[in-house]
Amino acid sequence: MLAVQIETRRISVAPRRMPRRPKGYSLIRLLCGGICNTDLELLRGYYGYSGIPGHEFVGEVVESESRELVGQRVVGEINLSCRKCGWCNRGLGRHCPSRRVLGIVNFPGAFREFLTLPDANLHIVPRAIPTDVAVFTEPIAAACEILDQSAIPEGESVAVLGDGKLGLLIAQVLQVSGLRVHHFGRHAEKLRIARNAGVATEVMRGTGTLPQAAYRFVVDATGSRDGLLQAVRMTQPRGTVFLKSTVHGLMSLDVAPIIVNEITLVGSRCGRFEPALQLLESRAIRVEEMISESLPLSSAQRAFRLARKSGVLKVLLH
Amino acid sequence: MLAVQIETRRISVAPRRMPRRPKGYSLIRLLCGGICNTDLELLRGYYGYSGIPGHEFVGEVVESESRELVGQRVVGEINLSCRKCGWCNRGLGRHCPSRRVLGIVNFPGAFREFLTLPDANLHIVPRAIPTDVAVFTEPIAAACEILDQSAIPEGESVAVLGDGKLGLLIAQVLQVSGLRVHHFGRHAEKLRIARNAGVATEVMRGTGTLPQAAYRFVVDATGSRDGLLQAVRMTQPRGTVFLKSTVHGLMSLDVAPIIVNEITLVGSRCGRFEPALQLLESRAIRVEEMISESLPLSSAQRAFRLARKSGVLKVLLH
Repeated sequence: MLAVQIETRRISVAPRRMPRRPKGYSLIRLLCGGICNTDLELLRGYYGYSGIPGHEFVGEVVESESRELVGQRVVGEINLSCRKCGWCNRGLGRHCPSRRVLGIVNFPGAFREFLTLPDANLHIVPRAIPTDVAVFTEPIAAACEILDQSAIPEGESVAVLGDGKLGLLIAQVLQVSGLRVHHFGRHAEKLRIARNAGVATEVMRGTGTLPQAAYRFVVDATGSRDGLLQAVRMTQPRGTVFLKSTVHGLMSLDVAPIIVNEITLVGSRCGRFEPALQLLESRAIRVEEMISESLPLSSAQRAFRLARKSGVLKVLLH
Repeated sequence: MLAVQIETRRISVAPRRMPRRPKGYSLIRLLCGGICNTDLELLRGYYGYSGIPGHEFVGEVVESESRELVGQRVVGEINLSCRKCGWCNRGLGRHCPSRRVLGIVNFPGAFREFLTLPDANLHIVPRAIPTDVAVFTEPIAAACEILDQSAIPEGESVAVLGDGKLGLLIAQVLQVSGLRVHHFGRHAEKLRIARNAGVATEVMRGTGTLPQAAYRFVVDATGSRDGLLQAVRMTQPRGTVFLKSTVHGLMSLDVAPIIVNEITLVGSRCGRFEPALQLLESRAIRVEEMISESLPLSSAQRAFRLARKSGVLKVLLH
């Protein structure tokens, strides 16, 4: 079978042996994979990753001890937890200290013709959701995580900063969840996707025009070093900033206004798949317009090059 | 009357005109003032402050329209708010956007023989609390603020980093509030004050020995640039770090572990005076041992020099 491989900042596609299916795992044929910014960061050398990348996928179960899974289209939660520790017992296997993470930490990723994952990680994709839409389940779950972490009052205004892939999903998820989203980004053509979904959007022209101390809740999904500083400035005293940008290395932060204004910063990562699949099934989130390109797995090098380009949103692998 | 004056990083003591008492304000004779790190920072030139410093004080009301105040010993909340805006209406005048702050923002401070403050800011000091103890009301209120901001479960282990003045008060306040405090600092002789109050203490020898991902709640009161990084490392996934160190200028922060571990950072500043006075009245907090020196107002220059020295805790002015 073919597999994508990252090794010392190089990407290749090469034949690999079929994976062995451990007990309790399903063998899954890849139908579609989505390239995420984290994949691009693995390629840039963060985490010192070498191996098969990919954690956003839809596949078909070809072999499993769980009969109800065989033949089904599935998406898979990316954290492989021990299922024994206190975190796992509290339903927070996403924080299990001995977890492996699909395509990120100690477990080969999904960008290969066949992969394995524990049955417990799999969710059957409802028929109504096309494969190219279901591949957005994982990042939508990450967007939904904000709602799991904080009780934002219905109808509250929320600012979302950043119009990248995750920012566009967060803006839509919060909007359909009954909040009034103000979405700030640098690209009119990307913001149009959120606007088509009913979100109020605004193209940022420099940071001087951003409203100051205006929102109780602000989401930083800029992926930039300045994003957090801007987000803090836009937040009211006693307000909350959600950190959805993974910026690597040390970044500069002025803590004085955070303390003086008693602002809360909330780190936010993966979320549960159930609400994400529900949102996709109800067609509440527009993702088709976010697909910039669809390429075969064998063209992964080109797909990664493309995904890095400014203006490009989601690149899919088939 | 004599007043301390900060002007372009210089401190002096000089005669000044008696302050005019506006309507609704009390005229207060200073009994005791406490030098806080913020005062030292004003002298270092932060905030571009020039004027009379001082915001920790006990005084005697000599003139007021509020008869019940005249002749009483009082402490005073430091934020002079508009008492009309939404923040003020919600009892959060400490965040009133047009607030002035005693000895910090647009209002002359307490280090002078006579000062004025709105009657609404004043709290009568119960007889049982000596003046040199009551002067700790403001920083103890700042310590109590942590409990107002977050519902920490009774009996929970909390790590407090930093054995400066505020760290010692926070450790004691959290301990007497039913939490199990582990207090980490660099000075055995300072930590002894917390230990005498029943707090578990540990002298840090480098950062390598600090427990990792060990606490759900961590307070950074180090006042150092590394404090927050250390505090984040000590916090469990989904745990909370309270920011009680005002570090000026930009500091470096690695946001990746905050996001991956979904840690919450809570900026925390001033608090309500009521719980602080209750704690002092019940003699639950040991502050006498924290008084390093007591000097007359006329020796403010020497007092500020002393307060800056390593190993020195609270310096009082009389």
